[in-house]
Amino acid sequence: MPTMKKSRKAQESYVTMTEFVLPNDTNTLNNLMGGRMMHWMDIVGAISAQRHCNRVVVTASVDNISFRNPIKLGNVVTLEAKVTRAFNSSMEVNIIVHSEDIPAGFKQKTNEAFLTFVAVDQTGKPIDVPECIPETDHEIFLFEGAMRRRELRLILSGRMAPSEATALKGLFDITETLYPRN
Amino acid sequence: MPTMKKSRKAQESYVTMTEFVLPNDTNTLNNLMGGRMMHWMDIVGAISAQRHCNRVVVTASVDNISFRNPIKLGNVVTLEAKVTRAFNSSMEVNIIVHSEDIPAGFKQKTNEAFLTFVAVDQTGKPIDVPECIPETDHEIFLFEGAMRRRELRLILSGRMAPSEATALKGLFDITETLYPRN
Amino acid sequence: MPTMKKSRKAQESYVTMTEFVLPNDTNTLNNLMGGRMMHWMDIVGAISAQRHCNRVVVTASVDNISFRNPIKLGNVVTLEAKVTRAFNSSMEVNIIVHSEDIPAGFKQKTNEAFLTFVAVDQTGKPIDVPECIPETDHEIFLFEGAMRRRELRLILSGRMAPSEATALKGLFDITETLYPRN
Amino acid sequence: MPTMKKSRKAQESYVTMTEFVLPNDTNTLNNLMGGRMMHWMDIVGAISAQRHCNRVVVTASVDNISFRNPIKLGNVVTLEAKVTRAFNSSMEVNIIVHSEDIPAGFKQKTNEAFLTFVAVDQTGKPIDVPECIPETDHEIFLFEGAMRRRELRLILSGRMAPSEATALKGLFDITETLYPRN
Amino acid sequence: MPTMKKSRKAQESYVTMTEFVLPNDTNTLNNLMGGRMMHWMDIVGAISAQRHCNRVVVTASVDNISFRNPIKLGNVVTLEAKVTRAFNSSMEVNIIVHSEDIPAGFKQKTNEAFLTFVAVDQTGKPIDVPECIPETDHEIFLFEGAMRRRELRLILSGRMAPSEATALKGLFDITETLYPRN
Amino acid sequence: MPTMKKSRKAQESYVTMTEFVLPNDTNTLNNLMGGRMMHWMDIVGAISAQRHCNRVVVTASVDNISFRNPIKLGNVVTLEAKVTRAFNSSMEVNIIVHSEDIPAGFKQKTNEAFLTFVAVDQTGKPIDVPECIPETDHEIFLFEGAMRRRELRLILSGRMAPSEATALKGLFDITETLYPRN
Repeated sequence: MPTMKKSRKAQESYVTMTEFVLPNDTNTLNNLMGGRMMHWMDIVGAISAQRHCNRVVVTASVDNISFRNPIKLGNVVTLEAKVTRAFNSSMEVNIIVHSEDIPAGFKQKTNEAFLTFVAVDQTGKPIDVPECIPETDHEIFLFEGAMRRRELRLILSGRMAPSEATALKGLFDITETLYPRN
Repeated sequence: MPTMKKSRKAQESYVTMTEFVLPNDTNTLNNLMGGRMMHWMDIVGAISAQRHCNRVVVTASVDNISFRNPIKLGNVVTLEAKVTRAFNSSMEVNIIVHSEDIPAGFKQKTNEAFLTFVAVDQTGKPIDVPECIPETDHEIFLFEGAMRRRELRLILSGRMAPSEATALKGLFDITETLYPRN
Repeated sequence: MPTMKKSRKAQESYVTMTEFVLPNDTNTLNNLMGGRMMHWMDIVGAISAQRHCNRVVVTASVDNISFRNPIKLGNVVTLEAKVTRAFNSSMEVNIIVHSEDIPAGFKQKTNEAFLTFVAVDQTGKPIDVPECIPETDHEIFLFEGAMRRRELRLILSGRMAPSEATALKGLFDITETLYPRN
Repeated sequence: MPTMKKSRKAQESYVTMTEFVLPNDTNTLNNLMGGRMMHWMDIVGAISAQRHCNRVVVTASVDNISFRNPIKLGNVVTLEAKVTRAFNSSMEVNIIVHSEDIPAGFKQKTNEAFLTFVAVDQTGKPIDVPECIPETDHEIFLFEGAMRRRELRLILSGRMAPSEATALKGLFDITETLYPRN
Repeated sequence: MPTMKKSRKAQESYVTMTEFVLPNDTNTLNNLMGGRMMHWMDIVGAISAQRHCNRVVVTASVDNISFRNPIKLGNVVTLEAKVTRAFNSSMEVNIIVHSEDIPAGFKQKTNEAFLTFVAVDQTGKPIDVPECIPETDHEIFLFEGAMRRRELRLILSGRMAPSEATALKGLFDITETLYPRN
Repeated sequence: MPTMKKSRKAQESYVTMTEFVLPNDTNTLNNLMGGRMMHWMDIVGAISAQRHCNRVVVTASVDNISFRNPIKLGNVVTLEAKVTRAFNSSMEVNIIVHSEDIPAGFKQKTNEAFLTFVAVDQTGKPIDVPECIPETDHEIFLFEGAMRRRELRLILSGRMAPSEATALKGLFDITETLYPRN
């Protein structure tokens, strides 16, 4: 096993996954089921987190996801994942999903999600990961929002008292930059 | 197709699903993958929402989910779903997940999640659903929190300005009752 | 591993499983295939038997099953399983299946089956299980029929000579209570 | 669609299916799950019945099956199916299963089963099938037992009164030739 | 583990596999996807090679395959595999595929393929296999062509210089007997 | 449906697919099965061809593939596909596969393959596709070899007499540039 790096560029964790919507992925309206989409998000996010830390990772949380545009049978779904920021043993991964009806020449962004993963050793114990270094403007934007999303996550799951939150000054003030508009 | 009822008791939408964790559901640590769990949550939630409205439903959103306790290969996973509240064409469903290592006599609550579903007609257009009538103390508790979670959801997805939120007076004040502690 | 109880109430082994009929579960008439149904029966029955004995279990036999009412794509299938009686290392499990077309408001009982499972230790060797204590009238009815079904099973698989059967006085006399009418 | 033949030789419906036991087919003891085996039996039986009648078929029933010899991960499973006899719109299919650990040079018969299928037209209505003509001694043996198994099936599912049974003189007299010894 | 034989008849490795084309196996035109077909070819070929050498085998190569006749949803696909020739630790397997629309009384040959497999020991190291003895005219024909196909394979994958090829005198001279016409 | 372009750059058809090797994808040595790999190649290749022509496509052929480096359970597999050249209604797609053991920091090229797809209309009839315009040196190299691979494919499947081949002057002369060395 190679020595773990001290830090890594966000871009190094970039992963693309392409899926074809098959019959068993769809409901009776021939739309992709949300659960299948979340299953794909989990896999592409885990691979991205693995690339960042060169460790086995486990899913720690998924943030709010909206499903607004139905994805049809036969569509091609592209998922892009990139680590936004690392915190000790955990990494937040940003996932952007597009769906395409290629024969119809139609492509749209359908979802954006944030999942977190924890690096673990062979016994399943958390282990520290390299820092994530953002470079582009968008990576820096995501890096900065990550602290606020983390506090919200901790508050929503009852593991942080609102008074302990420092980056998250107030949900109402920071909503604009907390989550991208889908 | 039967006439849709005007209202329905929360309890009528109660659904239990039991799954066995098989090899393909697990990662290299032999733990259930988060994506598979979300896939199951989506299916049991959709069945519960269908029971409430007697319509085809599609997934609209999933709220923050934490994955804290690993679920092992061979475990039995029980998912319980119940509609908490209806809003026009959408329904919020509460899902509680337990995992068991039956031979070891060990059972634990592993997750709690809120998913929303929208009832649609044959063309996929949203259609109104019956009101959901809570009866037990816990159902009333979930019913009351549903309005706040709905506002948070709308704010987080950029579809509501914080100033429009009336039930959600401030995230910091209401966190305790907004989401159950996992 | 906890100490195995000496006996257990039938009700403690009750398990419900809910499944959604997806495209790959169906034949070219869009009906659920019998083999998929039997696969689900096997899983729900194994979980029920595991609950009774807190051991790993393996399928030992399945009794006659009729498939009379087709179950359509998009239907919800509910399987309920409960141990009826234990014999040394084996347990008979009763499984009742309903299918629903929820949007159409239609629900029917589609199958009833009896499967038996054997508790095994880590090496796969059979191991004794707790007695099963029936309480309700229906549980007592199933408990009493179990001995006759067991004899029929042994006779049909060539492991018991008809003359050894004591509970099963003659198939023709006891058919009424041997198997429920589907 | 070709004209349906008036009769067909049993041998013409012979089908062989070979399966490799993969991880997801097994339980935590690395044994093939009974439900997966029944799923395969259903598919090979349906193909055999289709060959006999050149029609779409649906599963009508499965007779008692015992699972005595565990089948391990990596084994090769061979299922052989052949129609034994036709009754109006239904066909009884005999299925014999062997498992092999090829690297270990070990092969054994693991199961024998009888499934019945019904031929249906496009609307799902039963439709008459050709007679089945047995030729070999074993085919004749299976053909003759088919009437008794059919009566037992009808009695066990509550659709025939024991007094109506003519071929099945008494279960105890005919057990020997009713079901093969596994 | 039994002693490995010195040689084995081609016929001893004959395997038949029958598959039903289910919804998830098909594309949006309801045709079997080529990838699923290749997956089945790989499994039936591996079982055939295992039968020849009584060892675990791994796929080494697949030769050119054409897909000319579409196979429809609901069709029955029959794959027949037989070892044609062995070379040290590798075996060439010939696979012939037919598809049938049984209700329509229509059957056609759809593909013919050559895959090679290598026998390995527990550590994954190649291990010698028995010679393959052809008996029928067709087996001898396939046996003789195997050397030329092997040279072509090695040349195409850059592991043999054309000048080293002795059996393959020139592609243009031997094409007729190198690959069967599909 | 948009008007089909007259020509398209090779780069526009570039697709990346990432897969995680799960238990059911592996054989008893915990290596990815060749058939699963070919299934993935077929899907990524079909998406790439769809991108080129904006039509539904079907698999027409797969060229020789070697499997030399085993891919282990838990590895990440990356498939990259790009159209090399179009011929009337068919497109040749080049697919390059890498596997990674990310925790071990190990990545290798495992396969390279050429598949061809045919664009079809709603009735399954072939339909002309845009020309493919190569730009980079490697794209031009692949474009030029495509004609020779096409002739070899036609000869190997018996649809072209060797004497008709013009680009393929003699296999022995052009092997170097016909297929990349894996």
